Amino acid sequence: MAEKKMVEAITSRDEDFAQWYTDIVKKADLIDYSSIKGCMIIRPYGYAIWENMQKILDGMFKETGHENVYMPMFISESLLNKEKDHVQGFAPEVAWVTHGGSEKLPERLCVRPTSETLFCEHYSNIVHSHRDLPKLYNQWCSVVRWEKTTRPFLRSREFLWQEGHTVHATAEEAVEETERMLNIYADFCKNALNMPVVKGRKTESDKFAGAEATYAIEALMHDGKALQAGTSHYFGDGFAKAFDITYTSKENKLEYVYETSWGVSTRLIGAIIMSHGDDNGLVLPPAIAPIQVIIIPVNQHKEGVLEKAEEIAARLKGRYRVKIDDSDNSPGWKFSEYEMKGVPLRLEIGPKDIENNQCVIVRRDNREKSFVPLDSLEVKIEELLKVYAENIYKIAYDNMQKRTYECKTMDEIIQKLSESGDGFVHAMWCGEEECEDKVKEITGVGSRCIPFEQKEISDKCVCCGRPAKHMVCWGKAY
Amino acid sequence: MAEKKMVEAITSRDEDFAQWYTDIVKKADLIDYSSIKGCMIIRPYGYAIWENMQKILDGMFKETGHENVYMPMFISESLLNKEKDHVQGFAPEVAWVTHGGSEKLPERLCVRPTSETLFCEHYSNIVHSHRDLPKLYNQWCSVVRWEKTTRPFLRSREFLWQEGHTVHATAEEAVEETERMLNIYADFCKNALNMPVVKGRKTESDKFAGAEATYAIEALMHDGKALQAGTSHYFGDGFAKAFDITYTSKENKLEYVYETSWGVSTRLIGAIIMSHGDDNGLVLPPAIAPIQVIIIPVNQHKEGVLEKAEEIAARLKGRYRVKIDDSDNSPGWKFSEYEMKGVPLRLEIGPKDIENNQCVIVRRDNREKSFVPLDSLEVKIEELLKVYAENIYKIAYDNMQKRTYECKTMDEIIQKLSESGDGFVHAMWCGEEECEDKVKEITGVGSRCIPFEQKEISDKCVCCGRPAKHMVCWGKAY
Repeated sequence: MAEKKMVEAITSRDEDFAQWYTDIVKKADLIDYSSIKGCMIIRPYGYAIWENMQKILDGMFKETGHENVYMPMFISESLLNKEKDHVQGFAPEVAWVTHGGSEKLPERLCVRPTSETLFCEHYSNIVHSHRDLPKLYNQWCSVVRWEKTTRPFLRSREFLWQEGHTVHATAEEAVEETERMLNIYADFCKNALNMPVVKGRKTESDKFAGAEATYAIEALMHDGKALQAGTSHYFGDGFAKAFDITYTSKENKLEYVYETSWGVSTRLIGAIIMSHGDDNGLVLPPAIAPIQVIIIPVNQHKEGVLEKAEEIAARLKGRYRVKIDDSDNSPGWKFSEYEMKGVPLRLEIGPKDIENNQCVIVRRDNREKSFVPLDSLEVKIEELLKVYAENIYKIAYDNMQKRTYECKTMDEIIQKLSESGDGFVHAMWCGEEECEDKVKEITGVGSRCIPFEQKEISDKCVCCGRPAKHMVCWGKAY
Repeated sequence: MAEKKMVEAITSRDEDFAQWYTDIVKKADLIDYSSIKGCMIIRPYGYAIWENMQKILDGMFKETGHENVYMPMFISESLLNKEKDHVQGFAPEVAWVTHGGSEKLPERLCVRPTSETLFCEHYSNIVHSHRDLPKLYNQWCSVVRWEKTTRPFLRSREFLWQEGHTVHATAEEAVEETERMLNIYADFCKNALNMPVVKGRKTESDKFAGAEATYAIEALMHDGKALQAGTSHYFGDGFAKAFDITYTSKENKLEYVYETSWGVSTRLIGAIIMSHGDDNGLVLPPAIAPIQVIIIPVNQHKEGVLEKAEEIAARLKGRYRVKIDDSDNSPGWKFSEYEMKGVPLRLEIGPKDIENNQCVIVRRDNREKSFVPLDSLEVKIEELLKVYAENIYKIAYDNMQKRTYECKTMDEIIQKLSESGDGFVHAMWCGEEECEDKVKEITGVGSRCIPFEQKEISDKCVCCGRPAKHMVCWGKAY
């Protein structure tokens, strides 16, 4: 039977999380592998998720005054070399173009791994006066990082993302922007992806190459591993000095600008798979689901059934993303298929339902079934999508709470992790890199961030016992 | 004076069309040059035009059943080599990646110049049965062609575009798709860009590398030169055979698929500049103008003026793309600035207007001024944008008509071009490549396409005098 084959084909989430993930990205038709290692093909269903994310994020960026631009995909070697920390961070993993057609290029070009250098060069050309500031630019594009180990969405050699790059007259404004964008990401994760995140600052050793401070949102996946879901960097005037980006102030003085950058990527698709998915496949947040309501006609060859299904679809279109599956596959096969694809609501309509002027709606998250009078269909769908979104958020939130361990000693960390499984460890830190490294070496969890929301779990560093400076959120990272 | 400087800075269109074009792309803030030759930076105003084009086209694609995907940007050398005509056409102008980080790659990768080979590889993996057909995929991305001579938007080493790639069960369906997409492009050019085009088929020598037939839309620029604005290719089963893309038919036979591809690019931005622009700068079609109505408060420091301007803006927002310029620049400077940027309507509001409960609206195309009662503002704007769009279409159409010459002999072609300037030459052709080359060599105009709309100007080939097969549209190309 088709439906049986479908369900059998997916590995159980709790048995082998990595295999379960790989099964889902393929079986839900999100990606296909290309013949180049680490370069994936994003299929229509996967790309539609990304388009929905883009639309919401792009709206949030524009509402806060940002404008989209497009920079070249190539960076000359000399341009990449201009900021020393930055080049050290990225040069080992860039793809180099050496020839155009049959001619050797006078200088190697790399395919952008990120575009700070390109934006800096442009800003140095177009920023002259305080009247030109701020510039709040964003770009949607793909970037390339020649990673050794790759996984679809989580770590691929080419991935799609947006990168915001802004320049400001003062440090204060730039810091404000860095925080604003981190908050936008966190709000997006909560409201559109129904995924809770921890907001915080990265430690010195974990900062972006060239940044003065890196802020991040960290999410906890179902298996207790941490995923960096978005970052926002404050550069101070470091890049401005390297690229000579200056402006004439109101007081007629030449000043350097202050810069930020921030980005999220198709990695977020990986994040929602691992936050919400279950043994039947994807569970998609309504805000970004390509199909919010799948309509399945039951006994579709009986008179009036298909017509009714189409009437309902027509009614809902414009308000919701709706699809009818009137293919010849069995209802059972269809149920499995759209569960695999994580469609939030399944609407079944058959001859009996039509007689009773109702339909059946089944939620993907908990399989709860409702008989819904057709007269109040829109109201009920609205309500169901709302409680569905709240419920999947709550499940992810509870998982994070349950898997967040406050620990005072190294032994406690080791014990907690082995007893309760991977998760976020909250423990104090003295601020020394040595201790940060040692915690990771001994317990296996690395520093994810210094959460904005601090709690004094103890007054001593969990590692060395000296006075603690911060509570750190530790975890095993994807 | 600022306003004077602005107007002086642009070369006259009829004096030096090429320089006029270059001036506009810079002065209207569409692009900036990057330090890599032929790779341009698309600035916010230019990118917003592209976004508006994308939105309309993407809607048209989706309405006709197409889905978006994302393919990798890299093509391995062996994959590119699979279809012989195709590789011959593109290999001389691709950028080659040879290293990932410090390691030499086992095989060179090119940055996609177009993605037929990638789509073919994918289709060969996912198409098995007649139930899998058709696949109607599209991709928005950037591509790279290592051109020697470059010009912003018209010919750059990297450019943004969309590329549709579809596979079908039958040749008929594929031909139908090829024509459907050409018609969509033509409709888009007419309705969204207010630009007339000639639809036709390319001659054998001018076909896309690997295609069985290439259809194109050709537009005539203000200077009488032709611009290929979009293409749609029918591949037959050539690629299917090279890449082994087969399906099992209803009759249980293994069959090859039939394929198409079609694309338009940021070149269309160049097309609208050269179709509609004038000595004061851009003249933008309303459908894709980033700002449709610019509101300029006059005597803005007088009480109530700015408030009224904001009230009007708030009223119009959601219906039109509106902006207020309340900067300290003089009204005269602002007038020049938004003329340069091609904003269709300028709305002026000052104390006198407020007293009379009216405003002034000036059209960008002909500078016609209307006093508009505020009560009927929306109705009037709707009407003005409509007649504005019709008028710029008519101007471009009249230019094309005036510059389309029917010629029976080579001498007539030469004489017509030297008397009346560049344009489309309609002349008969025997179908031999030799004559096609000779016409170009002798008269300077090459074959643009064999228009669908044929007219028997004579029964003899304009070049050799043998029986004619087609009327060809000839021109000098960008």
